[in-house]
Amino acid sequence: MKGFGSDNHSGIHPIMMNALLECNIDHEPSYGTDRYSEKTLKIFKELFGPQSETYFVYNGTAANILSLRACMRRYETVLSSDTSHIHLDECGAPEYFAGKVQTLPTVNGKIIFSEIEKYLIRKGDQHYSQPKVISLTQPTELGTCYSISEMQEIIAIAKKHNLYVHIDGARLSNAAYYLQSSFKKLTSDLGVDLISFGGTKNGFAFGEAVVILNPKLQIDFKFLRKQSAQLPSKTRFIANQFYHYLNDETYLKIAEHSVKMAKHLHDGLKLLSLKNDLIKITQPQESNAVFIQIPKNLVKPLREKFFFYVWDENTTECRLMTSWDTTENDVDEFLSLLLNLINAVRTSTL
Amino acid sequence: MKGFGSDNHSGIHPIMMNALLECNIDHEPSYGTDRYSEKTLKIFKELFGPQSETYFVYNGTAANILSLRACMRRYETVLSSDTSHIHLDECGAPEYFAGKVQTLPTVNGKIIFSEIEKYLIRKGDQHYSQPKVISLTQPTELGTCYSISEMQEIIAIAKKHNLYVHIDGARLSNAAYYLQSSFKKLTSDLGVDLISFGGTKNGFAFGEAVVILNPKLQIDFKFLRKQSAQLPSKTRFIANQFYHYLNDETYLKIAEHSVKMAKHLHDGLKLLSLKNDLIKITQPQESNAVFIQIPKNLVKPLREKFFFYVWDENTTECRLMTSWDTTENDVDEFLSLLLNLINAVRTSTL
Amino acid sequence: MKGFGSDNHSGIHPIMMNALLECNIDHEPSYGTDRYSEKTLKIFKELFGPQSETYFVYNGTAANILSLRACMRRYETVLSSDTSHIHLDECGAPEYFAGKVQTLPTVNGKIIFSEIEKYLIRKGDQHYSQPKVISLTQPTELGTCYSISEMQEIIAIAKKHNLYVHIDGARLSNAAYYLQSSFKKLTSDLGVDLISFGGTKNGFAFGEAVVILNPKLQIDFKFLRKQSAQLPSKTRFIANQFYHYLNDETYLKIAEHSVKMAKHLHDGLKLLSLKNDLIKITQPQESNAVFIQIPKNLVKPLREKFFFYVWDENTTECRLMTSWDTTENDVDEFLSLLLNLINAVRTSTL
Amino acid sequence: MKGFGSDNHSGIHPIMMNALLECNIDHEPSYGTDRYSEKTLKIFKELFGPQSETYFVYNGTAANILSLRACMRRYETVLSSDTSHIHLDECGAPEYFAGKVQTLPTVNGKIIFSEIEKYLIRKGDQHYSQPKVISLTQPTELGTCYSISEMQEIIAIAKKHNLYVHIDGARLSNAAYYLQSSFKKLTSDLGVDLISFGGTKNGFAFGEAVVILNPKLQIDFKFLRKQSAQLPSKTRFIANQFYHYLNDETYLKIAEHSVKMAKHLHDGLKLLSLKNDLIKITQPQESNAVFIQIPKNLVKPLREKFFFYVWDENTTECRLMTSWDTTENDVDEFLSLLLNLINAVRTSTL
Repeated sequence: MKGFGSDNHSGIHPIMMNALLECNIDHEPSYGTDRYSEKTLKIFKELFGPQSETYFVYNGTAANILSLRACMRRYETVLSSDTSHIHLDECGAPEYFAGKVQTLPTVNGKIIFSEIEKYLIRKGDQHYSQPKVISLTQPTELGTCYSISEMQEIIAIAKKHNLYVHIDGARLSNAAYYLQSSFKKLTSDLGVDLISFGGTKNGFAFGEAVVILNPKLQIDFKFLRKQSAQLPSKTRFIANQFYHYLNDETYLKIAEHSVKMAKHLHDGLKLLSLKNDLIKITQPQESNAVFIQIPKNLVKPLREKFFFYVWDENTTECRLMTSWDTTENDVDEFLSLLLNLINAVRTSTL
Repeated sequence: MKGFGSDNHSGIHPIMMNALLECNIDHEPSYGTDRYSEKTLKIFKELFGPQSETYFVYNGTAANILSLRACMRRYETVLSSDTSHIHLDECGAPEYFAGKVQTLPTVNGKIIFSEIEKYLIRKGDQHYSQPKVISLTQPTELGTCYSISEMQEIIAIAKKHNLYVHIDGARLSNAAYYLQSSFKKLTSDLGVDLISFGGTKNGFAFGEAVVILNPKLQIDFKFLRKQSAQLPSKTRFIANQFYHYLNDETYLKIAEHSVKMAKHLHDGLKLLSLKNDLIKITQPQESNAVFIQIPKNLVKPLREKFFFYVWDENTTECRLMTSWDTTENDVDEFLSLLLNLINAVRTSTL
Repeated sequence: MKGFGSDNHSGIHPIMMNALLECNIDHEPSYGTDRYSEKTLKIFKELFGPQSETYFVYNGTAANILSLRACMRRYETVLSSDTSHIHLDECGAPEYFAGKVQTLPTVNGKIIFSEIEKYLIRKGDQHYSQPKVISLTQPTELGTCYSISEMQEIIAIAKKHNLYVHIDGARLSNAAYYLQSSFKKLTSDLGVDLISFGGTKNGFAFGEAVVILNPKLQIDFKFLRKQSAQLPSKTRFIANQFYHYLNDETYLKIAEHSVKMAKHLHDGLKLLSLKNDLIKITQPQESNAVFIQIPKNLVKPLREKFFFYVWDENTTECRLMTSWDTTENDVDEFLSLLLNLINAVRTSTL
Repeated sequence: MKGFGSDNHSGIHPIMMNALLECNIDHEPSYGTDRYSEKTLKIFKELFGPQSETYFVYNGTAANILSLRACMRRYETVLSSDTSHIHLDECGAPEYFAGKVQTLPTVNGKIIFSEIEKYLIRKGDQHYSQPKVISLTQPTELGTCYSISEMQEIIAIAKKHNLYVHIDGARLSNAAYYLQSSFKKLTSDLGVDLISFGGTKNGFAFGEAVVILNPKLQIDFKFLRKQSAQLPSKTRFIANQFYHYLNDETYLKIAEHSVKMAKHLHDGLKLLSLKNDLIKITQPQESNAVFIQIPKNLVKPLREKFFFYVWDENTTECRLMTSWDTTENDVDEFLSLLLNLINAVRTSTL
């Protein structure tokens, strides 16, 4: 059973499974002092810069809320897009762990830059929860990527107003591939302060990393992590997955595959949409997600074969996600099924 | 490199590694709706009773603080032993997530029952953080086990005062083996309300479970878990480890091995201690831990070969833990090294 | 020095000052068990219904956050207007004490009813912070009042979706006067669950009350209050102010005066605005607030004599608040000054 | 009705009542920018040193928890005596707002200095909630005072271990009088970092102050206060009470009276205890509290005339507190009643 539900519906990529097997020998100290952690942290420094420090955690929500805990005092505000995971999909965890969330309006999942300064008001006013950090999702929840120059523009606004910049990068590798950019160019070089760097959605069994580029935010992070119940005990099993993910550009190869499969899917859908007006592509394809609007009555028969999420119940906008294990054949079968269903609709049999 | 540092210094038990491999096929829904979770939750109900509900989380601290969040309102108090993990080793997480921790005095890691009611005062007094739950570690941090009748006694006190009963059971399987008791007899049948049930220390890559026996505490637990960043995405990889751990009494076999290795170690040390007064066994061996007092100058040479923790810097009381992968040979080599060191001391070469 | 800055710029009303003097004899038990509290709580029951319970706290933010703490579990959401005090003026206290704040769009300070259900989505979805309470400000931050029928409509939506209804009533007496309604008709009879009932802005030295109409929310409120540092020690001094405020319809007389002064101000400004296009009334006058737009260059000379707040820096919309101590003369002098300034502008001397 | 229940059973001292009346004219800006706050903050600087900053709050619990919020990050620990108000009487507020509370053993309410370092362990260990501040109550909950040299000794330990020093000084004026010391000598000069400085128990209607001596802790305190619902709106009414309390040594005169009344009570009881063994003085009288052990059957008849608290139900140790309004006559009547009751016991009529 395959589908386009989410990249966390996939299993463990063979390279990461081998990573688990490889380090499963003998005893290792727990809580991060093992040899695998040591060599993996070194590779993170190579990719993100020597001033960076990386901390493994279990999942993406943890990476996000720990990043925010590190940046914010409790009376401060994080600005994020109105489609962000921290606003809509983390059960109020940012408010529980960190502080207030103030959403910013978006187009295609990207924050409208001209709107940001409207929220940067009442500086120093004790009655007003003070904006302290802006959280950007890269790629966004709608699969689009901020370009390097867009990042520069938004970070310039942030720095002008003394805001930290956080990247929710559960799929950052896909953005790096799409933008043909190194992690360093995408983050450290731009002045990003810290990153939720994803593993799970890219073929891990489990495991994410908080990469802290700003040394000020590293000081007591280990206590925040432990207290938030996110210090992994048998750390080697996260560390070694990251080692092999980052080594030898595996992350790029996996990203390339996922994004290419999305492009293949997107191009097929585009063709279909040109031939009939029943389906419509709703977002640019810039990572491993494709968003289309399809007639409500096609959803059920399609999902019987290929699971995916309806993003907006009102418009039947749907999200299709590819993954490291999506095959061309999966895409072609989906397109073929969709074509059949469209024809069935046209000939009134549906 | 092997040692007696902790059971989380061991790697993944072959059965659990096979569990990871076994379920690594195709797509599965994330966040707990996969087929592996379904069949594993069924087996939990068989072992803990049909009214129980089980929730997977990442680690032991998470299981503890989520158990406490489920039991307590923020103005309430958890009573625990003064050697408990929640008091000493979770970086204030219980106070951060749940409420006040009030410690109770202990002997050999076990709460002194006659002391409990001294803390059950000022009921209904709004100035006083109200005791609401008692947390028992089974086996205790000092490796001892509360007997069934001790559990009955302490739970009777708890119930009389309307306290919930939580068990920190990171190594509950070892207690079950030592007490020759089923999980049900050790928990549900006694009136326990909820359990942190350990996987990691028993041979998992990662993964613990909160087993909630009291239906009142199950109502909104899923929201507490998600908000606390403990909802695993690729749940199948925790679930299937638990499946094979609980199936076919694997848990008992692993526990039997660990406890027998500890007994072997204990018996060897006992013999040594009878022959000389340099070493002393300080706690009864009732699970997979052995506590001994050894001369300070023996610690370093011993630890060069076999890592272990000094439990009390002042008395040089040391903790030796066995694990699923401890061999008789490991134990014998350790005993032999210790004997040599003792002889060296006696003959003044150390 | 008088002005229209806020009703908390006024001092203590003579009746409340007498209340302080009156009860300042002998010893009284502290923390709410004094005789003055007893008789005052009785009068609250008369006004809000026998099932109500009232709890004194120090200030309005406290009344709001304690109301929310009583209603919400930490993973839940409060819905409020996008101009609400809890969203904009409490430094993230609701997120700190209670849970997520989700704002709803407004017109003239009132929530647009048709928008509410857009936010009542994803019920039971563990990833989504669940709406649990709607907080209405009555009168609103823009001085408008929800009519009884509007309240019925909004509460019907709330009840349909199982939401609690909270009223931020820092100036509820003014709404009661304006709507010619009793507190009971405005709250209990409509199904409101709990109220932040204001004292300070109505002539108190200090003191607010949380009036809990829904018995389910009363159960452990005293612990929430104490833990939130809001249990007044010398309670008699809050209680007796409320006693005299509620007794003999003092609250209505004070409200009548404030609202009439606002009407007098509003009518004078209306007249001015009809004669020239420099000033514009921007919100209906329905309590003790008047909102006008005036030219930027008039603000400074006006504020030198009569302080008031610029509500919106971009549009120079200003808020003028009357109080128990505003006199007709204060209003007339302000209007006369404004007229002079307008004439000065017209004749180009400004 | 008078008694010895608590100094917050007393009403408002005439000087503080006049302070309320005096500033009750015209409008004043709210939230701390009024003229009365300005001149009062100046006097605080004179008494505590020019580097100090003072913040008004409503009550003692608030002063304590805000002091702790200012000192601690959430994963840190405050050390306090095992009889401290923050441990026993604030409903877990320190754990809710600030972090973990670790108690230290005491004699006569004073921390045993030699025990402190036992808790200053595991520095830098991420699993262990790190001690960051020691909170001293002066005078203690048992009415004793740390001498200047005791304060020096304990603060030396604190500084050596990089701990902040907080003083819970709800009755600090009484200690200042008893020790014949200025506030500065008792606090700033010794290296104290911040103080909960009491008003309510010394004759105020309401009002406490957080005096922050360490500039590092002042930086964002105003946000912590506002978010914790402790920013008083009509600040002048707290400020002007403090003005008159601190001006002209009123605080010393009130303290002198309370402490002398306690001494009078203590001396009378001492005399009684010398003549018979039914009563026993249990703590040194060093402020406005006297602790005695009396037979259980005397408690009820005594309390019918003069309310007081039984401190320890098991030993019938009772606490008698004097106040600004205690008269010699009150004391003499109490002593006389007690003598009568003792005689009645002796002659078996009780």
